[in-house]
Amino acid sequence: MQTINISTTKNKEIIDLTDRINSLLSKGAKLCHLFVKHTTCAVTTADLDPGTDKDMLEAFWEMIPKLNYRHPHNPAHVPAHIASSIIGPDVTIPIKDGELDLGTWQRVILVELDGPREREIIINFS
Amino acid sequence: MQTINISTTKNKEIIDLTDRINSLLSKGAKLCHLFVKHTTCAVTTADLDPGTDKDMLEAFWEMIPKLNYRHPHNPAHVPAHIASSIIGPDVTIPIKDGELDLGTWQRVILVELDGPREREIIINFS
Amino acid sequence: MQTINISTTKNKEIIDLTDRINSLLSKGAKLCHLFVKHTTCAVTTADLDPGTDKDMLEAFWEMIPKLNYRHPHNPAHVPAHIASSIIGPDVTIPIKDGELDLGTWQRVILVELDGPREREIIINFS
Repeated sequence: MQTINISTTKNKEIIDLTDRINSLLSKGAKLCHLFVKHTTCAVTTADLDPGTDKDMLEAFWEMIPKLNYRHPHNPAHVPAHIASSIIGPDVTIPIKDGELDLGTWQRVILVELDGPREREIIINFS
Repeated sequence: MQTINISTTKNKEIIDLTDRINSLLSKGAKLCHLFVKHTTCAVTTADLDPGTDKDMLEAFWEMIPKLNYRHPHNPAHVPAHIASSIIGPDVTIPIKDGELDLGTWQRVILVELDGPREREIIINFS
Repeated sequence: MQTINISTTKNKEIIDLTDRINSLLSKGAKLCHLFVKHTTCAVTTADLDPGTDKDMLEAFWEMIPKLNYRHPHNPAHVPAHIASSIIGPDVTIPIKDGELDLGTWQRVILVELDGPREREIIINFS
């Protein structure tokens, strides 16, 4: 088990984790599992052509309905919670020749939806 | 492999699975995989502050467009199917010191979207 | 590690992968992990009653907002990227008695959102 700590710098932000994870890869592992210990950020994969990060963040935000939420501390956080639960807190990626076996344009991303915050990502190889 | 059986009691409901899964944890396991054998419920993680369950269910429902669906038995079920496929039937969570290694406010949840029903969740440790 | 290659034939299409994966299952494996090496398709599970594939594709498309996207090559691809990142590039399914341990109506699906294309799915058993 290893941990990546990320200090996000914006309220909404896409962070490319690919190179950091590749630098941690265990020899002989077949799969890499990532998990965020948080409820207002998520992990997935995506194409990160210039501008695509902003496109994704705008779309995620627009998709979540702005209802009269009940959340006791801050109802304004609810859309970030909902988008995080849908995108999901985890992803598992195969490993080949000592690197994440991604598609040509595919990157592993952290989707920050309520930053800036300190984020902890747990990595397990199997 | 172990199985959790849950009888949901409402049409739409969020059920916190965290304590039940923690009570099943295998000594020495690094990862816990959950899978629902169903097409109208899903598993993910979320903050469960009071009212947040209702917030999430309303938002999931509002997000899914109400189109003229073709489903042969009951077109009214289609939004539950679609939300389930998007949230996803599985999640993998790391284990630390004999417990699910979740964030402070993070819980593992079953999202029931077409209850009340008997739900079966398959748990594997690795 | 094994690979499934699929030539999709439509721009948007749901392809049932269940039988192909069952034919590859390793003896003694407990879990099957699928991963798509792409950013405009995804894998999940769903009920595939007749017409449900079209229902899902229409709903996915309708859900993604049509904003003024920045993507440098083809902004029209952005909704396919976003839906793929949300549905997700991977799913893990338990194995029982030499077959995927799915629910009665549950199938493993590839969601093609920008075809027709050659798609590569990486399969790992553990």
